Amino acid sequence: MTIERTLFTPDHEAFRDSFRRFMDKEIAPFHDDWEAQGYVDRALWNKAGENGFLCMSLPEEHGGAGADLLYSVIQFEELWARGFTGVGFGLHSEIVAPYILHYGTEAQKKNYLPKLASGEMVGAIAMSEPGAGSDLQAVRTAALKQPDGSWRLSGSKTFITNGWHADLVIVVAKTDPEGGAKGTSLFLVERGMPGFEKGQRLKKLGLKAQDTSELFFNDVHLPPDALLGGQAQENRGFVCLMEQLPWERLQIAISAVAASQAAIDHTVAYVKDRKVFGQPVGAYQNTRYTLAELQTEVQVAQVFVDKCIELLMQQKLDTATASMAKYWTTDLQCKVMDECVQLHGGYGFMWEYPVTRAYADARVQRIYGGTNEIMKEVITRAMGLPGR
Amino acid sequence: MTIERTLFTPDHEAFRDSFRRFMDKEIAPFHDDWEAQGYVDRALWNKAGENGFLCMSLPEEHGGAGADLLYSVIQFEELWARGFTGVGFGLHSEIVAPYILHYGTEAQKKNYLPKLASGEMVGAIAMSEPGAGSDLQAVRTAALKQPDGSWRLSGSKTFITNGWHADLVIVVAKTDPEGGAKGTSLFLVERGMPGFEKGQRLKKLGLKAQDTSELFFNDVHLPPDALLGGQAQENRGFVCLMEQLPWERLQIAISAVAASQAAIDHTVAYVKDRKVFGQPVGAYQNTRYTLAELQTEVQVAQVFVDKCIELLMQQKLDTATASMAKYWTTDLQCKVMDECVQLHGGYGFMWEYPVTRAYADARVQRIYGGTNEIMKEVITRAMGLPGR
Amino acid sequence: MTIERTLFTPDHEAFRDSFRRFMDKEIAPFHDDWEAQGYVDRALWNKAGENGFLCMSLPEEHGGAGADLLYSVIQFEELWARGFTGVGFGLHSEIVAPYILHYGTEAQKKNYLPKLASGEMVGAIAMSEPGAGSDLQAVRTAALKQPDGSWRLSGSKTFITNGWHADLVIVVAKTDPEGGAKGTSLFLVERGMPGFEKGQRLKKLGLKAQDTSELFFNDVHLPPDALLGGQAQENRGFVCLMEQLPWERLQIAISAVAASQAAIDHTVAYVKDRKVFGQPVGAYQNTRYTLAELQTEVQVAQVFVDKCIELLMQQKLDTATASMAKYWTTDLQCKVMDECVQLHGGYGFMWEYPVTRAYADARVQRIYGGTNEIMKEVITRAMGLPGR
Amino acid sequence: MTIERTLFTPDHEAFRDSFRRFMDKEIAPFHDDWEAQGYVDRALWNKAGENGFLCMSLPEEHGGAGADLLYSVIQFEELWARGFTGVGFGLHSEIVAPYILHYGTEAQKKNYLPKLASGEMVGAIAMSEPGAGSDLQAVRTAALKQPDGSWRLSGSKTFITNGWHADLVIVVAKTDPEGGAKGTSLFLVERGMPGFEKGQRLKKLGLKAQDTSELFFNDVHLPPDALLGGQAQENRGFVCLMEQLPWERLQIAISAVAASQAAIDHTVAYVKDRKVFGQPVGAYQNTRYTLAELQTEVQVAQVFVDKCIELLMQQKLDTATASMAKYWTTDLQCKVMDECVQLHGGYGFMWEYPVTRAYADARVQRIYGGTNEIMKEVITRAMGLPGR
Ligand SMILES: Cc1cc2nc3c(=O)[nH]c(=O)nc-3n(C[C@H](O)[C@H](O)[C@H](O)COP(=O)(O)OP(=O)(O)OC[C@H]3O[C@@H](n4cnc5c(N)ncnc54)[C@H](O)[C@@H]3O)c2cc1C
Ligand SMILES: Cc1cc2nc3c(=O)[nH]c(=O)nc-3n(C[C@H](O)[C@H](O)[C@H](O)COP(=O)(O)OP(=O)(O)OC[C@H]3O[C@@H](n4cnc5c(N)ncnc54)[C@H](O)[C@@H]3O)c2cc1C
Ligand SMILES: Cc1cc2nc3c(=O)[nH]c(=O)nc-3n(C[C@H](O)[C@H](O)[C@H](O)COP(=O)(O)OP(=O)(O)OC[C@H]3O[C@@H](n4cnc5c(N)ncnc54)[C@H](O)[C@@H]3O)c2cc1C
Ligand SMILES: Cc1cc2nc3c(=O)[nH]c(=O)nc-3n(C[C@H](O)[C@H](O)[C@H](O)COP(=O)(O)OP(=O)(O)OC[C@H]3O[C@@H](n4cnc5c(N)ncnc54)[C@H](O)[C@@H]3O)c2cc1C
Repeated sequence: MTIERTLFTPDHEAFRDSFRRFMDKEIAPFHDDWEAQGYVDRALWNKAGENGFLCMSLPEEHGGAGADLLYSVIQFEELWARGFTGVGFGLHSEIVAPYILHYGTEAQKKNYLPKLASGEMVGAIAMSEPGAGSDLQAVRTAALKQPDGSWRLSGSKTFITNGWHADLVIVVAKTDPEGGAKGTSLFLVERGMPGFEKGQRLKKLGLKAQDTSELFFNDVHLPPDALLGGQAQENRGFVCLMEQLPWERLQIAISAVAASQAAIDHTVAYVKDRKVFGQPVGAYQNTRYTLAELQTEVQVAQVFVDKCIELLMQQKLDTATASMAKYWTTDLQCKVMDECVQLHGGYGFMWEYPVTRAYADARVQRIYGGTNEIMKEVITRAMGLPGR
Repeated sequence: MTIERTLFTPDHEAFRDSFRRFMDKEIAPFHDDWEAQGYVDRALWNKAGENGFLCMSLPEEHGGAGADLLYSVIQFEELWARGFTGVGFGLHSEIVAPYILHYGTEAQKKNYLPKLASGEMVGAIAMSEPGAGSDLQAVRTAALKQPDGSWRLSGSKTFITNGWHADLVIVVAKTDPEGGAKGTSLFLVERGMPGFEKGQRLKKLGLKAQDTSELFFNDVHLPPDALLGGQAQENRGFVCLMEQLPWERLQIAISAVAASQAAIDHTVAYVKDRKVFGQPVGAYQNTRYTLAELQTEVQVAQVFVDKCIELLMQQKLDTATASMAKYWTTDLQCKVMDECVQLHGGYGFMWEYPVTRAYADARVQRIYGGTNEIMKEVITRAMGLPGR
Repeated sequence: MTIERTLFTPDHEAFRDSFRRFMDKEIAPFHDDWEAQGYVDRALWNKAGENGFLCMSLPEEHGGAGADLLYSVIQFEELWARGFTGVGFGLHSEIVAPYILHYGTEAQKKNYLPKLASGEMVGAIAMSEPGAGSDLQAVRTAALKQPDGSWRLSGSKTFITNGWHADLVIVVAKTDPEGGAKGTSLFLVERGMPGFEKGQRLKKLGLKAQDTSELFFNDVHLPPDALLGGQAQENRGFVCLMEQLPWERLQIAISAVAASQAAIDHTVAYVKDRKVFGQPVGAYQNTRYTLAELQTEVQVAQVFVDKCIELLMQQKLDTATASMAKYWTTDLQCKVMDECVQLHGGYGFMWEYPVTRAYADARVQRIYGGTNEIMKEVITRAMGLPGR
Repeated sequence: MTIERTLFTPDHEAFRDSFRRFMDKEIAPFHDDWEAQGYVDRALWNKAGENGFLCMSLPEEHGGAGADLLYSVIQFEELWARGFTGVGFGLHSEIVAPYILHYGTEAQKKNYLPKLASGEMVGAIAMSEPGAGSDLQAVRTAALKQPDGSWRLSGSKTFITNGWHADLVIVVAKTDPEGGAKGTSLFLVERGMPGFEKGQRLKKLGLKAQDTSELFFNDVHLPPDALLGGQAQENRGFVCLMEQLPWERLQIAISAVAASQAAIDHTVAYVKDRKVFGQPVGAYQNTRYTLAELQTEVQVAQVFVDKCIELLMQQKLDTATASMAKYWTTDLQCKVMDECVQLHGGYGFMWEYPVTRAYADARVQRIYGGTNEIMKEVITRAMGLPGR
């Protein structure tokens, strides 16, 4: 890229280096095998915890490093740039943990945050169901309050990232069936609770080492303090979910740009090297213009995402802007991967090439975290357009 | 689609039905397992032979049915519509066999064609090499003529469809190192010949049940009559390759349209059924317009491809027009799959959905059979534009 | 193009030649001036009539030539290929006249058709209003039936092709305000009737020589037989409009393809000639691939449109298929013009270049005759998708 | 837009207001007439000068306001947002004047800059010729040095912005025919010099009020000090041209984003108001998603351009980045205008609608200031790709 990024301090860059070394040692040699088995080794989580690579932005009192979000930004970037998409640290550290930090009771924070930070527990969040994805109000998983204040939880969830490893799952459930959006709450459900069962790990187009899974809750008995935030947050689950959207969506945008730039770099190297008809593939004008277009858009995207990160850190990133970032960069990512595959010729279809996996991984980014269609709904509303 | 196709007679349609029954019985129940193992069961080839589903267009004297090409068209359509992309009948019957029929000596025809037609032998064609794909003149595999008229063949090939099963491989090799395009010949190489070894089956983004492989030739001793067409065709390999291009490329276009229409059909059914925010996904204007656009383009493509088939059967399809069909329909196929995946939401990323596999399979169609960039080179020349 | 068209007989081609000569003599030398003044010379209509270039498909008894529609196809193609887009023969001959032929009473046919065929009268059709375009049911022009069976017509129309020259206007008006679609009728209104006034000729982006105008009807008194088809067709106006849609939309598609091919031809010639950095613009790969892509799509479009013409002549073209043709080819036309302008560099912005005008003219094709969005509504319904 | 811009101080915004008032009073009431006549009234230049709206960034000693570039940024934005594209202040103030400021001799600065700043002189720059646009080395206009140090200039230029009004033209001419890029110089040529003649004002697709013209130089006798920068700059013309590229290209990008945002704003207002089938056009999902996409891209573009402005002001904007901005935002501008026209239905084709003119004006932005293809050449080189 041609524009120097200005977000990061030398400390951040030192962290980037150390995380790279961690990846080289603990991830790179194994990621292929993890793809084959469909999940990363559980031990990776503990090693990451030991090395301070989980929940870095949690306050120190809760086991974190009290770091600013840029450390997590760097982690997203590095994992996606290298194609280590099986590693679900981001969701764990920057989605699951923050829910507990922001909405949890003191007891919940004490109990869970240090375990998430150390890797003793792997976290997941379970919103989607077979019949409810974009439309979370259609969630049918329900928690029935018992006279003693405890709950009985039933329902099934699907597409749950980190689902198979998960020790702690934040489950979205109806607590007031009449209440619509205002009748939903979040529960902290632990592995091993009777009635909580894991379904199969889902076989996917990409993210092959990600243990995305189905989860089943068959009349799981939950103590009163399994309600995230306690009674204060009862029926306020949707509000919590909404408040976290900007950062969650921006995370996807960050990874999209990093993956895209890495693919361009791979491809530039490839086309300089590969010769056809007596000259490098990269000497043909079609190749050159294609790469110039991709690099331009990724450069533009980087500047935009960096601006959004800045706004986020100033508490100024709204949902519509984050939705712009999410939809636009992930569309771009898919376009970049598509062109980069093409420029690799037959090799672009071979699984051993990073660009091929990057192509497979990219496709889901337009779907999860709110589909890109849903992003447009959000933007359109911010523009004051009528309708639905 | 809204326009009735007029190519096919009732006989053709009866054949379509019977091939569908064959697929239901002999392919559908197993294709998933074949994907997992990376190749179709060898026995499938024999069953297909027994049932008359191989080399249908060969003259009866050579074991075929003397059928017109529309029977093969139907087979391409049905296999791709169903996603049975591991099954390499097309290349075997309509690329490999025709080379022998058109250019082989009487002895070669006698020897090989009936075996290909019966499934006793599986055929492949090996042009591409690690260092030569688009640019076949860069082929380094070479056959050295021996004083006794026999040949010594050395080199390596890659990306060879049906390669792992192949009993008979047509190998493109240099026979006159100085001759450039005019120094290339085709050889018939059989499994088991000393020095002919198979490399690994290649792990790919899609076409998971296809046994695409590397092949190695280490000083393979070939008898004089391993030269396809005998001495008459020595150094004429390129001419043969060129002559077959229109039909070979059209085959890809045919499969592209069939796969696309099937994906649209799947998706229309899905979006009618799937409900979000109280109405079917298919009721949203974005969904409807997207599908209207895809259906329009696929309808247009079908009319075009049918016209090309007509021209082909009248011996009037030139390479530039076939290249238009190949590039345009495969670009379209990838676009269709991409949108259909998106309309499936999270399910579009799950391997068990046909549309997901169709997405993965489609990607290679813009690459093999001559990349779409090479197609544009061909078209541009036919337009009289100054060249490369 | 690479595929020979098979629709036309030598007679058709002879007609094409003679129409070309007519254009060379009677249109080409003046079209620039007509653009400047905003309308073609009225005399052109009479000359066209004299030479048999109006209403060719009308039966001979009504002043036509009893010709098949291919003669009109040729006329559309030639006018748009040359950029003579001010000349409204098509609407006159193949929209206005057919309404009278298909739905008119014998007296109406006798009265008007020969005058349209001779050019004594110029025809127009007035559906659109300032507040009603896509949504014709919102038409507010109304005709009130008088006790004596005569009518009083009031309302205003806009965007009326041939409006300023028009001697005879088919006016869409509400005849039963409660009846919705079933309360609309068509009226034959003549220039000079008291209360019928012409507004300004509309200044447009392109179609500069087209006298598109506003029309005003201020309590125009119409005799009973001004109702097209007489009482039999009272309140059946919408049905008539619907029935004519396939042919009307196909006309636009025909012109779109012809204009596109002409622009490609111009541009190919230009880029072969124009030199930059020591070689023709047409030698750069970016230019070559762009033109290969455009030519491919236009070739595909031509085959599709020709198929539609065939279907139309067999009475088999349905509205959804015609809508596909209309939307897809006009989108393509705009894309072609956009790229061709670009390849002309600065000259592509200069009004004297045909490609520049073709760019300006093309833009409206996606809008009139039913916007391309409306086309998608139609297609989507034919696909069985749940509605609006 | 959703992201607040941070570039401008209250002083800048006050300037914006006052320039808006100037436009309201001195431009808005007349621009239509200026379009009809093909040039703005000469008096506008003097009024602008009087009011301090010319050459604001020139040092005060040279008649400017010593203002930072953001004042000019604002002027570009406001003129293009309002569609006052006939007004060539930008080229005059931020291209012509800076050449003299940066490369001129003291005498030249003294002589010309105050006149440019007051509007007494209108400036233009003449690089392009009928046979040389992208490829400036093909310039044939030549200046022959006379024994007394004076020059004789001959050649013709075309496409010259402000050409018809121009009082002072910077002319690019060969001074050493063998020297290639190193044999080019810049000359200051004044209206009225014998042999300097103006050709016709060029009729264009858009920019209708811009007096873009041809200029002819027939053996014009130039005094020695007509050479910009005097002898020190002899044969250094190309270097000067290159150095100014980043800012010149960024100017186009700035105008592209401003025009795009204005068109979106117009269109949002229009579709909220316009009703079809009982609801606003803006309530249809197709409309909403289209506008959400456009607004997203324009928002992204604004952030990028603002970043580039920042870099420019820090002397850190390189040519490749400016080329990214130029090509990407102008492509976007054309896309925005195209969609906005479509959403206006028939009105989008009527000249009286701002969006229609904006469509016509936009098209040239991808062509002048270096075509977008040339931008990609530049980017590609910065990426280290081989070839040309
Ligand atoms: C790999 C992966 C990981 C995931 N991880 C998690 C996780 O950790 N936790 C979790 O809870 N969920 C997770 N998800 C689920 C994900 O959030 C959902 O898949 C996503 O929100 C879409 O929901 P859906 O799949 O039900 O699609 P649907 O909601 O059924 O959407 C189907 C289609 O309809 C479109 N659509 C929806 N509404 C509209 C509308 N109003 N207008 C027009 N079109 C519309 C959609 O855009 C889509 O194209 C994951 C999914 C995947 C694939
Ligand atoms: C699944 C699969 C099955 C296959 N089956 C067979 C088989 O059965 N037999 C066989 O012989 N081969 C087979 N192939 C190989 C296939 O034909 C080649 O992959 C293809 O021809 C491209 O060659 P390449 O991979 O070497 O790419 P390269 O030729 O290296 O191309 C790399 C990139 O450069 C581009 N390029 C090339 N030339 C130009 C140019 N002049 N201008 C601009 N860009 C250019 C290409 O379009 C591509 O984007 C198969 C491939 C695959 C993936
Ligand atoms: C040069 C020219 C010549 C013409 N000639 C004639 C003529 O001879 N006779 C005649 O009667 N008319 C004529 N017309 C009018 C033309 O038919 C209309 O302009 C056209 O039908 C669109 O109507 P509108 O302009 O009212 O746009 P609107 O109907 O207001 O449409 C505005 C926008 O809304 C979109 N839209 C509409 N409905 C929907 C929906 N349900 N969902 C999503 N989007 C929607 C449209 O596609 C468009 O983008 C002509 C127009 C032009 C420009
Ligand atoms: C309204 C207007 C105002 C202008 N104002 C001025 C002015 O004030 N002063 C001035 O000097 N000039 C001016 N210009 C000229 C403008 O800078 C040129 O038009 C522009 O640089 C393109 O040059 P050209 O028109 O000769 O196109 P060409 O250079 O002939 O280009 C033709 C096509 O070839 C493409 N092309 C060129 N090189 C390559 C390549 N290497 N590879 C692939 N494709 C290539 C181009 O992109 C273009 O598509 C103006 C032009 C216009 C239209």
